[in-house]
Amino acid sequence: MPNEANIIEFLQSAFAQPNDKSIGIGDDAACFPKDENSSYVISKDLLLEDVHFRRHYAKPEQIAHKALHVNLSDIAAMGAKPLYVLLGIALPADVDNTWINAFLQSFTHACQQTGVRLIGGDTTESKSSIYISVTIIGTANNEHLKFRAHAQVNDRICVVGDLGEAHAGLIALEKNVPNLDAVKERALMPQAKTQIGEWLGKQRAVTAMMDISDGLYIDLSRLCKSANKGAHLQLEQLKPSALLQKACAALHANAQQYQLIGGEDYALLFTVNPQQLNALQHAFTTQFATSFAVIGEITTHLPIILTLNGDPQPFEYQVFSHFGELK
Amino acid sequence: MPNEANIIEFLQSAFAQPNDKSIGIGDDAACFPKDENSSYVISKDLLLEDVHFRRHYAKPEQIAHKALHVNLSDIAAMGAKPLYVLLGIALPADVDNTWINAFLQSFTHACQQTGVRLIGGDTTESKSSIYISVTIIGTANNEHLKFRAHAQVNDRICVVGDLGEAHAGLIALEKNVPNLDAVKERALMPQAKTQIGEWLGKQRAVTAMMDISDGLYIDLSRLCKSANKGAHLQLEQLKPSALLQKACAALHANAQQYQLIGGEDYALLFTVNPQQLNALQHAFTTQFATSFAVIGEITTHLPIILTLNGDPQPFEYQVFSHFGELK
Repeated sequence: MPNEANIIEFLQSAFAQPNDKSIGIGDDAACFPKDENSSYVISKDLLLEDVHFRRHYAKPEQIAHKALHVNLSDIAAMGAKPLYVLLGIALPADVDNTWINAFLQSFTHACQQTGVRLIGGDTTESKSSIYISVTIIGTANNEHLKFRAHAQVNDRICVVGDLGEAHAGLIALEKNVPNLDAVKERALMPQAKTQIGEWLGKQRAVTAMMDISDGLYIDLSRLCKSANKGAHLQLEQLKPSALLQKACAALHANAQQYQLIGGEDYALLFTVNPQQLNALQHAFTTQFATSFAVIGEITTHLPIILTLNGDPQPFEYQVFSHFGELK
Repeated sequence: MPNEANIIEFLQSAFAQPNDKSIGIGDDAACFPKDENSSYVISKDLLLEDVHFRRHYAKPEQIAHKALHVNLSDIAAMGAKPLYVLLGIALPADVDNTWINAFLQSFTHACQQTGVRLIGGDTTESKSSIYISVTIIGTANNEHLKFRAHAQVNDRICVVGDLGEAHAGLIALEKNVPNLDAVKERALMPQAKTQIGEWLGKQRAVTAMMDISDGLYIDLSRLCKSANKGAHLQLEQLKPSALLQKACAALHANAQQYQLIGGEDYALLFTVNPQQLNALQHAFTTQFATSFAVIGEITTHLPIILTLNGDPQPFEYQVFSHFGELK
């Protein structure tokens, strides 16, 4: 089977648009014109049973919430405001009315909570497992849209959101480890950074943005490839949360490893002009009563260099799978 | 398992928008504003292996073509012009590079042929079968958009496109009947009526429109329900094509039954103001060198009445399934 990167590469080359970086495959969402000053952004994400969730530990309410928030995160990553959503769902015969009612009520509740309007969709039977496909549309002023390709050398690499917790939760769920409810909740009910993404979109200091869905290391690599740049990560700035430390102790796992390779935290990764960093951090803290982490800087070319207090650190990238196996 | 109608009903009630018929679930596509004078329309359709297609007789090129055209048909049914498409695809491990390359090349070719631009998507692995989700966006002047709800009593019911042929093809494929290649092609490679739909959208004489994806009888029932009206179908006007007659003879099937209940022809069903019918037919024939069929008229209330040369005809509706069983 060809991997996702190959398929995306094929489609990108088939639809290459010279001199048009603002539309196309490669960012978290694609753009199309709204009016003279603003654009729509659109994204679609698939959620498949036994690939992205398991019915035996994820409740229908949680699956519905996650299906929406995974998509909301793509809109936030563009610096846009979410507006409309379409829900596609294929259901096998063993899904009963209780399950589907809980799913639909949770989905509509999550839409209402985030101000998103469900405007369409498709339902069908499935011969095997549950398939969910959500399409989401948002909008932003053209000047506020953020693209991966616009990161500049020396820009500071920043993250808002705790990394590694969802991965710890996933491992705990998969291995049926008792307790650790807080990290399990992170895996089952991720919260898209909708308001933060929209706010960061409006800041000129922010040069590029994406969400971290597959893990910091791989997603930063993607940002670097889009921008044709590299990165230097300072591992001492990757401070694990108390929650992650506690979970990793129980799981006999390395917290920093989870921060680098764990997916599904839906944190936001963004780059900031270094001259404007302090002013941005100040404004951010005033707005959200929390700060973002500054974890490195953009360099001229790949590979990504990792250091700990200035000393180079070896790191062999291991692919993140949604069910936490390192393959 | 709740059926599609129940799910749609739940979502419609959860998101009911009083006094706003122009946006929401129920038409072939949902609308959202573009600028002062025009709207975008958006639709998504799921295609699942062993529900909507089978790999053992449908080639990847055909599956890709159909995935796009099923969605193009929804845009045509709104009277809109297709612009952008997003492709989501989940692939199991037994799909090889040859298959996926053929699929992607056919999909991109079909996009280019119809002037649609692929702007995004999602790919993932599947643990079971192939799952395709296409989202399509089109645009139309607000005055040209067609909605099911706007059909009026005495409007003539019209169809453009041959009915029943795709169903005959599906039965032939499912039963492994030899020959009958032309109807098999109708099932495997449906052609959305993109230009006709956009043209009909611009005609004020056309009061309502939808595409026939699940069969004339059920889809006309849906149009009637949206408009809170009924319908009278004159069966003598439902003239089977020579191709359908030949296929039905070989399949020992009733051609008229196939025309009424067969799905996936992606014909367009529309209603026309009776005073403007002749002028519309003339303009249509001039434009497309063919005519549309006038098969009945909108009445005040359900049920749909069927007559043959004036005599009422009994008809027990049998549900169409994508694989042609009458259940």
